[in-house]
Amino acid sequence: MNTIITVGREFGSGGRELARRLARELSFDYYDKEILSEIARHTSLSEEYVQQVVENQPRQLFPITVGRSFLYVDTQPLQQASAVFHAQQEIIRELAERSSCVIVGRCADYILRDRKPFRIFVYADMQSRIDRCRARAPEGENMTDKEYKQQIVSMDKSRARYYDFYTDMKWGDKLNYELCINTTGQDIPSLVTVLAKLFR
Amino acid sequence: MNTIITVGREFGSGGRELARRLARELSFDYYDKEILSEIARHTSLSEEYVQQVVENQPRQLFPITVGRSFLYVDTQPLQQASAVFHAQQEIIRELAERSSCVIVGRCADYILRDRKPFRIFVYADMQSRIDRCRARAPEGENMTDKEYKQQIVSMDKSRARYYDFYTDMKWGDKLNYELCINTTGQDIPSLVTVLAKLFR
Repeated sequence: MNTIITVGREFGSGGRELARRLARELSFDYYDKEILSEIARHTSLSEEYVQQVVENQPRQLFPITVGRSFLYVDTQPLQQASAVFHAQQEIIRELAERSSCVIVGRCADYILRDRKPFRIFVYADMQSRIDRCRARAPEGENMTDKEYKQQIVSMDKSRARYYDFYTDMKWGDKLNYELCINTTGQDIPSLVTVLAKLFR
Repeated sequence: MNTIITVGREFGSGGRELARRLARELSFDYYDKEILSEIARHTSLSEEYVQQVVENQPRQLFPITVGRSFLYVDTQPLQQASAVFHAQQEIIRELAERSSCVIVGRCADYILRDRKPFRIFVYADMQSRIDRCRARAPEGENMTDKEYKQQIVSMDKSRARYYDFYTDMKWGDKLNYELCINTTGQDIPSLVTVLAKLFR
């Protein structure tokens, strides 16, 4: 049976780096943004549109008031969002069938719950997340700590909203994970070397 | 420099077993109830009394109303509770000086924060905690799931109250730990074998 590792992560915590290195260390397949390309292929929506739907879901897609006057509201975005989530579900299940893998985000822990994936959540304190964002920023980006913090809080909110909407669980609640890893002050490559031993 | 590992744990999660095994695996000293005996020696209070103070603190030691009519309230229990906490603080610092060790509970993570201990929190879902309590119950104990749940919730509340009172942090909040480990469905000995590799 394939080993499935899912990685949820706070923005700026280094969770994606940890997941990618873990997959490499274990010679497992690694899926992150690749899933979006697959969804685009399955749904004949553009990859950019899929990304937009995934990142803005579900806040912008629901009318605040539901009533007669909204009968003519365009429901296409909602239908597409739903189509995207269903395509994502199918693709993630297919990938888990195919081989042992590490999957970042996308509610994969929930979608694959019957297969008992090993669920990791990666987090860190605010300052180290700000520092990490700054270290990986494109050249010329010159944001203050306060601006980074706003970005981090907003990204986390968006992830939490997406996760809580599609699952019956709470994003980041430690009961939904086998292991929660605080990367504050930690060296991710060394961490991964040890972590990999859990799966051998 | 000594390696200090602190272990916080939910009641019934197997955190104590994990800590004890981890200490043995690493040939580190292990401190849990031993600390109470040391406090008793330092404060010339009986070990039973120290245990009672530690377990009931701080809820039962404060008058609900403070006013003139309480001027004659016996403040001795409060003074003793404070003495116990201070003795505990000193002892834990001494132990951390002496050798590499694993310390269970007792706010050791907070007391030793300047030494940057590796802080672990162990937790599990309610059913597996109930099952674990039942498995280790003394012969003849015949409690229902509901009764175990009540005991678990009450013990956790008491730990949280103690921790939150003496520290400026929140018990069980994952940001206060390097690693949070969910023991639901996990084999603790195997977990410890891997975990130990983090410290070698």
